[in-house]
Amino acid sequence: MFRREDEFVRWLRGRLGPSGSGVTLGIGDDAALMRPAPGRELILTSDWTIQDVHFRLKLHPPESVGHRALARAISDVAAMGGRPRWALVSLAISKRVDTAWVKRFYSGMARLARRLGVTIVGGDTSVVAGAITIDVSLVGDVVTGSGIRRQGALIGDHIFVSGTLGLSALGLELLEARSTANYRKVPRALRTHLYPEPQCALGEMLSRRKLATAMMDISDGLSLDLARLCRASGVGARIRETAIPVPAVAATSSPPLALALHGGEDYQLLFTVPTKIAKKVPAQFHDVALHHIGEIEKGRAVRIVRATGRAELLIPSGFDHFRKKRM
Amino acid sequence: MFRREDEFVRWLRGRLGPSGSGVTLGIGDDAALMRPAPGRELILTSDWTIQDVHFRLKLHPPESVGHRALARAISDVAAMGGRPRWALVSLAISKRVDTAWVKRFYSGMARLARRLGVTIVGGDTSVVAGAITIDVSLVGDVVTGSGIRRQGALIGDHIFVSGTLGLSALGLELLEARSTANYRKVPRALRTHLYPEPQCALGEMLSRRKLATAMMDISDGLSLDLARLCRASGVGARIRETAIPVPAVAATSSPPLALALHGGEDYQLLFTVPTKIAKKVPAQFHDVALHHIGEIEKGRAVRIVRATGRAELLIPSGFDHFRKKRM
Repeated sequence: MFRREDEFVRWLRGRLGPSGSGVTLGIGDDAALMRPAPGRELILTSDWTIQDVHFRLKLHPPESVGHRALARAISDVAAMGGRPRWALVSLAISKRVDTAWVKRFYSGMARLARRLGVTIVGGDTSVVAGAITIDVSLVGDVVTGSGIRRQGALIGDHIFVSGTLGLSALGLELLEARSTANYRKVPRALRTHLYPEPQCALGEMLSRRKLATAMMDISDGLSLDLARLCRASGVGARIRETAIPVPAVAATSSPPLALALHGGEDYQLLFTVPTKIAKKVPAQFHDVALHHIGEIEKGRAVRIVRATGRAELLIPSGFDHFRKKRM
Repeated sequence: MFRREDEFVRWLRGRLGPSGSGVTLGIGDDAALMRPAPGRELILTSDWTIQDVHFRLKLHPPESVGHRALARAISDVAAMGGRPRWALVSLAISKRVDTAWVKRFYSGMARLARRLGVTIVGGDTSVVAGAITIDVSLVGDVVTGSGIRRQGALIGDHIFVSGTLGLSALGLELLEARSTANYRKVPRALRTHLYPEPQCALGEMLSRRKLATAMMDISDGLSLDLARLCRASGVGARIRETAIPVPAVAATSSPPLALALHGGEDYQLLFTVPTKIAKKVPAQFHDVALHHIGEIEKGRAVRIVRATGRAELLIPSGFDHFRKKRM
């Protein structure tokens, strides 16, 4: 481990490189200084990444832990239609991990940051007896007045999701089963779990073209997150089972629909678009398919229309930090 | 404990009240939206507050834990000469604390936030098996180009500190000794330890009047923090033992000079002022005395001139998270 905090800060400053866009003063002072872009609002979010809650040392390589910790926060900014800009990374290191772990952690995080234009401008460090604990705070920005909220979905709006849902949960199942044969069959699942890709470009496009009335990222599972979007908007929803983009699965894993409905951590986007302009939503944006899965309805209920044609209440059963541990 | 995360977020939104200055969207969405003030740079900082590292359940009431967690971050913004504006509070709650603890924690934090004009706009929550862990990220702002750094102290500059140093360390000693008789003798020590006051008004005044060439807050002890300021500025320093504002102590506590030099957590400001304008620094600002304790010198050494007139090297021995635990 680094012998002194100052030594660690110097290493980090060297590792994460010089200032990025808009940064007046980066790592190493009491605080960082940044220049906001004119005509834009700030977006502010933070996300925990805690050992044995959000990752396990035995399953997740340090690069993945760093990547996922930052990706969670970037995805929140993408869900507002914004671009991510500056991050603070607070790391409480367990006494049981070595310097190599810390270096690989920052390496995975820095790679994603560089690719998506994020500068790590500061944070705090501590050494703890217990679990490795990471908190990433992120500042993004968006054209003033263009931030897309959970609130705003209107009755009749089409409901869309991006990408394939349930891949991350499937990847975790494969990792837990040490199912190396299936790693080759469903490599996307493993990649999505270890290195999920926040949908910044898609979020920004939807904000710029003013297509979405409401949006959020799917971090805790479609069933729970759709219920949250509906509650924030004061509406209900009806989605079609057959329209949900489910993953191709291995024989031993959970049913694809269960993975897609309740899996979470894919960091895809869930958004609603008025019927009149729904045809402006492309079938694909960059490499990501966009799926029309249902409609916003009046009332409060979220229903799923089964393949048989029967409509049922969709019970939210994604991840909730107050009821159970994720892993 | 709150049964569901959404229930907790609703309680928090009610508790922390409606939006504050510049806030477009507060707690409860994927992220918060804020409008930056024109002509100002952003200041960004985050600080850990971890059970058994930064506080102990047996010594610190929950209101104090909330107050101190926010005060740490506010002090970083004060140290840049800025004003604090928006905070993200990430809380990983131990299973062993109840809802009452959480409510009192936020009550202590909210009181300080309100008084200093800070709006809590978001954060993340998790439940953990181990220590209560809090990370506060804070956005402040300062007139563009007016942020005061650790770097910038010039040879000959006068060195100032605000307030009395060592009060917080003394307060902790009294708490640890359960020295209730001395609580009454040195009530300031207890108050400073449990409810330290970040020096925002002073920091802003020094920035607005362009008095300070370098500044930082004294969080880890004068001996360590002065060494950091000198290293950042590439200079040395000489301070006078007799000029250091030490606390009045109880008979059983550590010597006052040791508390003042190595105590930390007073969140007073350390700053340097060119000789020519040093007389513009008032002896007192609001209720806080400002003390001229020495001068910046060439070289790298930090020396202390003892009461006998003999100059000695000042060995940094404040708090370093990588070497020992604070408590």
